[in-house]
Amino acid sequence: MYLRKVNNNKAIGIFDSGIGGLTVAKAIREHLPQESLIYFGDTKHLPYGEKSADAVKEFSISISNFLKEKQCKMIVIACNTASSLAYEAVKKNCPGVQIVNVIEPVVNRLSEEHSPSTIGIIGTKGTIRSGIYLKKIKERLNQVEVNSLATPLLAVMIEEGFIHNSISRAIIENYLKSNSLKNIQQLILACTHYPLIQDEINDFYNGKVNIIDSASEVALYIKSVLLELNLMSTTKTEDCFYVSDFTESFEKSAKFFFGKDIHLQQVKLNP
Amino acid sequence: MYLRKVNNNKAIGIFDSGIGGLTVAKAIREHLPQESLIYFGDTKHLPYGEKSADAVKEFSISISNFLKEKQCKMIVIACNTASSLAYEAVKKNCPGVQIVNVIEPVVNRLSEEHSPSTIGIIGTKGTIRSGIYLKKIKERLNQVEVNSLATPLLAVMIEEGFIHNSISRAIIENYLKSNSLKNIQQLILACTHYPLIQDEINDFYNGKVNIIDSASEVALYIKSVLLELNLMSTTKTEDCFYVSDFTESFEKSAKFFFGKDIHLQQVKLNP
Repeated sequence: MYLRKVNNNKAIGIFDSGIGGLTVAKAIREHLPQESLIYFGDTKHLPYGEKSADAVKEFSISISNFLKEKQCKMIVIACNTASSLAYEAVKKNCPGVQIVNVIEPVVNRLSEEHSPSTIGIIGTKGTIRSGIYLKKIKERLNQVEVNSLATPLLAVMIEEGFIHNSISRAIIENYLKSNSLKNIQQLILACTHYPLIQDEINDFYNGKVNIIDSASEVALYIKSVLLELNLMSTTKTEDCFYVSDFTESFEKSAKFFFGKDIHLQQVKLNP
Repeated sequence: MYLRKVNNNKAIGIFDSGIGGLTVAKAIREHLPQESLIYFGDTKHLPYGEKSADAVKEFSISISNFLKEKQCKMIVIACNTASSLAYEAVKKNCPGVQIVNVIEPVVNRLSEEHSPSTIGIIGTKGTIRSGIYLKKIKERLNQVEVNSLATPLLAVMIEEGFIHNSISRAIIENYLKSNSLKNIQQLILACTHYPLIQDEINDFYNGKVNIIDSASEVALYIKSVLLELNLMSTTKTEDCFYVSDFTESFEKSAKFFFGKDIHLQQVKLNP
């Protein structure tokens, strides 16, 4: 008798420090409409960007336990800080579950290109401090220069709805004109919030820098993994969205990131 | 035989969601140089401003347990969000310990004034949503109008060192020109970060609005309480600064808020 270990129709689990990872959930929803999603936003501990590696690992393991209990066939770490600091820990904690981070798909995409170039990376302090993008890119590509800059004000600015106005322009310009990002040909948006200001970043560069948004790269990568492992779902159930701390303000922002109204349910995780 | 319940030479405990409350610690240090301070910054959970009342109460009680263990003679909730949402809970949790919040001293100061006026309040979402300032002011003063505005970007902006530049000017102006703050004669800075941008706020109003900074009001209030209860210290021990999550970045910022180098020690609290 053949026992299938993983049920194809189980959900894809996605987690983030808060609601920013909903940009990744949205991209997965668009590219893989037949998949069921279970999203967990750790709003009680957000943001992760400034916190220590130990704290981010502790939070991530506790969330991955919750998603394991929900029998997710795959867990997507839809947060660059957690992908940078806790990927190995989550993988070790969830044998038999496919773990996807938001860094590999972007690095894969870069390695498909062959011309030497200078790549810029912007993200939270945690992501940039980890040096993970630099390390991963250098493992694959020799002829590139990688320059990174922590841009911690951007995520809050976006959460507070300061986009497409004079304030977002001033903040974006202040960061992007930094010497750290001089002469780049490509810019990796290494934070799940940033797709929402991709247009403004593109305007700053007059379209002359290639902007790489991890959300859609991750969704395409997940599709290829599910196809390869023959794990595509055939029956869709309702998507569920959980948070560790509920406020109306989070629910309102969730719509902004996911592109449509969603209902957030609060759950208490075991520490 | 007369037994003194409280030892005058025990420390004043001070806590905040992070390092912003160090502006209050600094003011206490200046006004009460003979007192010993034990500071706790809940950097693992910062910021509190966006979180639910239940979450903020849970964090605050766990910290007050830590400060009780340290035998603090007084606990100062140096965070407007926690003062708004968790003061009663902390008071109930710490019988026999003087609990000071950052709201009462400001409201006391306002009630000493007799002319009718329009008062503005700026702070985090949690503080403004709680309506606590409005309630407390209305209990004491009839002839005032109170208008408040949540200004969530300011705290992060200050933490990231965006002060006295074009970005801080743009953000401050955007908030203060809001209709919610029209025609005010006084402005309460209801967040412990804001003393660091008091000059810029004053510039925006060309000195025509009276800016009330809670840090120094709180320090003066504490002095009066210690005098009244005969609790002034006679022997000073070394100040201690604890955080629930340590990063170098926090330690660097701590200097900025406290005005001099301090060493942060990480401790794990019981949940």
